[in-house]
Amino acid sequence: MTPVSLGLDFGTESVRAVLIDAGGAELGVGTSAYRHGQITKTLPQGGDPLPAEYALQHPEDWIESAAQATRHALSQAKIKADAVVGIGVDFTSCTMLPTKSDGTPLCLLESFQGVPLAWPKLWKHHGALSQTERMNELARQRGESFLDRYGGIIGLEWFFPKMLETIELSPEVAAAAEVWLEAGDWFVWRLVGCEAEVLPRSTCQAGYKALWSAEDGYASEAYLDAVHPELGRAARTKMPGRLLSPGETAGTLTAEMADRFGLTPGIAVSAATIDAHAAVPGVGAAEPGTLVMVLGTSSCHMLNSGSGHPVPGVAGIVRGGILPGMYGYETGQAAVGDAFAWLLRLLNLKSFHELTDRAMSLPPGADGVMCLDWMNGCRTPLMDGSLRGAFTGLTLAHDGAHLYRALLEASGFGLRWIVDVLRDGGVAVDRFVATGGLPHHNPAVVQVYADVLGETIEIHPSEQGPAVGAAVLGMVAAGAQRSGFADVTEASTAMAAIPHEHRQFVFPNPDHQTQYDGLYRQYRVLADVMSQGRS
Amino acid sequence: MTPVSLGLDFGTESVRAVLIDAGGAELGVGTSAYRHGQITKTLPQGGDPLPAEYALQHPEDWIESAAQATRHALSQAKIKADAVVGIGVDFTSCTMLPTKSDGTPLCLLESFQGVPLAWPKLWKHHGALSQTERMNELARQRGESFLDRYGGIIGLEWFFPKMLETIELSPEVAAAAEVWLEAGDWFVWRLVGCEAEVLPRSTCQAGYKALWSAEDGYASEAYLDAVHPELGRAARTKMPGRLLSPGETAGTLTAEMADRFGLTPGIAVSAATIDAHAAVPGVGAAEPGTLVMVLGTSSCHMLNSGSGHPVPGVAGIVRGGILPGMYGYETGQAAVGDAFAWLLRLLNLKSFHELTDRAMSLPPGADGVMCLDWMNGCRTPLMDGSLRGAFTGLTLAHDGAHLYRALLEASGFGLRWIVDVLRDGGVAVDRFVATGGLPHHNPAVVQVYADVLGETIEIHPSEQGPAVGAAVLGMVAAGAQRSGFADVTEASTAMAAIPHEHRQFVFPNPDHQTQYDGLYRQYRVLADVMSQGRS
Repeated sequence: MTPVSLGLDFGTESVRAVLIDAGGAELGVGTSAYRHGQITKTLPQGGDPLPAEYALQHPEDWIESAAQATRHALSQAKIKADAVVGIGVDFTSCTMLPTKSDGTPLCLLESFQGVPLAWPKLWKHHGALSQTERMNELARQRGESFLDRYGGIIGLEWFFPKMLETIELSPEVAAAAEVWLEAGDWFVWRLVGCEAEVLPRSTCQAGYKALWSAEDGYASEAYLDAVHPELGRAARTKMPGRLLSPGETAGTLTAEMADRFGLTPGIAVSAATIDAHAAVPGVGAAEPGTLVMVLGTSSCHMLNSGSGHPVPGVAGIVRGGILPGMYGYETGQAAVGDAFAWLLRLLNLKSFHELTDRAMSLPPGADGVMCLDWMNGCRTPLMDGSLRGAFTGLTLAHDGAHLYRALLEASGFGLRWIVDVLRDGGVAVDRFVATGGLPHHNPAVVQVYADVLGETIEIHPSEQGPAVGAAVLGMVAAGAQRSGFADVTEASTAMAAIPHEHRQFVFPNPDHQTQYDGLYRQYRVLADVMSQGRS
Repeated sequence: MTPVSLGLDFGTESVRAVLIDAGGAELGVGTSAYRHGQITKTLPQGGDPLPAEYALQHPEDWIESAAQATRHALSQAKIKADAVVGIGVDFTSCTMLPTKSDGTPLCLLESFQGVPLAWPKLWKHHGALSQTERMNELARQRGESFLDRYGGIIGLEWFFPKMLETIELSPEVAAAAEVWLEAGDWFVWRLVGCEAEVLPRSTCQAGYKALWSAEDGYASEAYLDAVHPELGRAARTKMPGRLLSPGETAGTLTAEMADRFGLTPGIAVSAATIDAHAAVPGVGAAEPGTLVMVLGTSSCHMLNSGSGHPVPGVAGIVRGGILPGMYGYETGQAAVGDAFAWLLRLLNLKSFHELTDRAMSLPPGADGVMCLDWMNGCRTPLMDGSLRGAFTGLTLAHDGAHLYRALLEASGFGLRWIVDVLRDGGVAVDRFVATGGLPHHNPAVVQVYADVLGETIEIHPSEQGPAVGAAVLGMVAAGAQRSGFADVTEASTAMAAIPHEHRQFVFPNPDHQTQYDGLYRQYRVLADVMSQGRS
């Protein structure tokens, strides 16, 4: 019987379950949207409107939707339940929550269900602006060495700023919290059902979002104490567990969860990984120098390299953070699919079809319209969630197609800036692979990216790179004896790489190169102007 | 029999005819849209697409529509044709054309009907960008004194740049031209039917658009020769006529035109005036210190003062240019109603109603969205048609209402900048009167203007300020014996001023003042940034 692995890919709006066998065959897929989606207006039971920068989620949705998606994939796969040997989990990050020591989320307690900050904060929750600014200022003043691994800046969306926000604004929640953790780790903890002291925490989430490194652990206690005594205390006493790399075995599936998901108890479960990072094994890109671009609501661009050294502007460099034995560089763009969808709503249009045709028939530069794609702040390289988007060069002759073309190009310029930052920092980038939902739903994006970069881009034909990557990690967690694979690289190559003759390429238009070189310089000038006076 | 005057108000899309008696009673109104509207895509007989910056008109439309509107007003007024003692004409400016010496427009000759630059150029025709730049550079180099009267800059839409554009790009048209003139002057010439040598030219058009002053005449021959020998030659030999102030008698109506319009031959016709400038007598604002704001497609803000001196950034200061005996200051904003309509189209909406309600319920500052209202360049104070509009501060949480609020506010900030420039230049501004179509169709505009300025604004209840002003000028042209009025001020007060108890005021919201002071400073910073590197 060929071993099968279940990959669970938790996105912003829904979860996807895929069943992949050791030969890479996709046997079944299921998706399920979260019942409460993103909680941005009011809490589920009503109450005051939430501040505009809030984005929360419901923890029961994750379990409920994952079970439903898994049951759907199983019914499609028509395999015996005991063929499944491993489960891998990737999750949005940093999505995090406070729980009791038995894992119960505080928001599910009657006393806290009406308190917004008792709820899980979604990665895009931007409530910790002032906390982030103070943490950065103090880290710079103290010359904290961890800053070098993050391009010199702690992100607005990261773990400790989100924790500090609750400590300062909802101290009663912080006092009642017994465990603080990433949602991905929480979900794996639920699957394997261990004690809090040994709960499995992912080195990927910890390394990229919680100032952790294999050498130094979390940020120094002295620094966290100096930020806020309660932050230091919570880091020491409320973050129990053991740190495991993605692909390491977190435990085995409990009988209760097996029943809920329609699986067999005892299946190996891998430590969690971040959704975007799962795409690297998920597209079979295990070699150094390949930029794996996960294009979705936002975008995450990842690259492995044999050596690790600080690159100004790169938000995360973690040894073994993506693949064992390599340095993983993480960069990203904060609004991509989200920004396209926003423009469509703004223009009161229903579908991109007509708009795309008209936008793509315009010349490079959208007849003078320039866009800055910071509608959700700038992730790499400025790491500033408070930055804002813009359209310039507008005349009465422009219409929605010009704005859309300019937004597509701005997204490409933002990507080109990231590639420049990596190369200027001495990191080789010589292959580009696009994955995620966007390349399939909106191929124009990849064409504009190729033109703006002047580089050929491969589209990985799976629409579920991260989900496949999670399945690869689940397979590895089952151990060599059951899976047949010695390590992640072996499993990734067998389960996720596309044979060269089946690869799909998007080539840059050489006629546009000179124009895009000039337009990119203009974009950088606009970015300079619009970020002046910001941190 | 109470004397009646006909005002003919030529706008961008249509002409309006009003019949007003000496007591100010409006007896009849008619409007008629130009058959060819604005000619911006192709010439009437087809052919190649016109460049994007072209805007032309058909001279026969002016006669045809004016005759139709007049007949309609007469039928509504139910007066005897011989009750009409005077005709006044206001026109968009600088709208200009080349003709033969008998007044025939070149574009109506078979040999020229397919040549775009043989057609009348509408005020907003922007084909003369490079010509304007060269004229400005040379004028600055030579230290031409006329620059002081125009804020140091010759406008892209003015008479000589438009003439030079044709000389350089269609020399065969320039060679065939025997007379160059403003469309308003051409229309008056058609009404009175004199020889070219004595054709009536308006001091208003000449003063504000053709570098003319009562003291010095047109720009010096040496300067025009230096720009282009043919420009100097044409200024000397192809601009015949006598210069008359608005309200002075240009001649009397010919039998042919009387027949076409349904009027009596021999009626006195006033020299033409610019449409916006006609609003000053048209709203009865004959005293110094009142800013008359004609709000329409674009906006023109005019002010009379007892003394005249150069104010940096003010595009036109002409002695007797608006009212006899006073210095008329002209300022303007290039895209107002046009920009609102553009945004509505961009957002794919049909009506402003819902959008206005939502925009006006937002706080000042549109939740962080800032707009630069330069979608048709910046008229006062930068006088640069090549400048472009922008929206900044955009996030995924913003929608069309935020953009509209920001655009309304930007329009208000642009107006406040103009008022600052006048006051900083020592010109008193102590009363604000809004007229034109916009205040009636879109009252939110006036409220935002009042809030941003921190000033009370009167709305003149007539929707046809310029047309009434033209009628006032026509009445004065008929002479004191027939009209009963000694001068424009007397006629304006009797025919157009609103009794104080019937005046309609829009008051500023004092709660918003501090916020708008801060937002206005941000607008000025954005304007500085976005105009850097421009002339």
